[in-house]
Amino acid sequence: MLQQEPISLELACAALSELWSPRVVGQVNDQYIKVAKIQGEFPWHQHDQEDEMFFVLRGQLRIGRSDADGGPVFVRPGEFFVVPRGVRHNTSATEETWIALIETVSTLHTGTEQTPFTRSIEEQLAPNR
Amino acid sequence: MLQQEPISLELACAALSELWSPRVVGQVNDQYIKVAKIQGEFPWHQHDQEDEMFFVLRGQLRIGRSDADGGPVFVRPGEFFVVPRGVRHNTSATEETWIALIETVSTLHTGTEQTPFTRSIEEQLAPNR
Repeated sequence: MLQQEPISLELACAALSELWSPRVVGQVNDQYIKVAKIQGEFPWHQHDQEDEMFFVLRGQLRIGRSDADGGPVFVRPGEFFVVPRGVRHNTSATEETWIALIETVSTLHTGTEQTPFTRSIEEQLAPNR
Repeated sequence: MLQQEPISLELACAALSELWSPRVVGQVNDQYIKVAKIQGEFPWHQHDQEDEMFFVLRGQLRIGRSDADGGPVFVRPGEFFVVPRGVRHNTSATEETWIALIETVSTLHTGTEQTPFTRSIEEQLAPNR
């Protein structure tokens, strides 16, 4: 994925029409850069081998974790938080929230869980979602 | 590097006292997340094995490339650009510019060039720069 021009995360996010459907907008080494619009709650899952970075553009992201893992984290615009591999988590937002993500290219959207929210990598690479 | 709290890229950058001295603020998989303040011009160099992602927080980043590689690129706040491995490049900014970078943990600051700007990974991990 050779990038020709600078890409605005905000504009890339604005172009999304569907909630909870990440779109790949770039790649650095073995990591995809993605954007997503979210509102409501995403199923609990984990990635055994891969960390996941969340960067908030608009709104507020709640990352749920068990009490043993430190409990929920709230991420605001301009802030990032990395969920380490192996940590069970979910994401939610009460208002429409725009986020960027950095994930290993092999990361599965909902970890080992198959849910109605699950999007394949092919879907995440498709234009016009 | 286990992250305890969300981190604001803007505040992390504001805390830097020295130009051209990246500070590691996070890690996702085998990639470091760094912030830097820059102004003026950084030496030409390349990374043969590693892509480098630049995200601009404030100001304007100019990424110089040879004409054969497409020439210079200008990156504005909220935009990112990935310089692919093997592409000779330099970075410059006419005004003070705040950036975040994502680079493989093994990436050398000035590639194969040793310059007065070169900072070791240990220096980039040190607090209070």
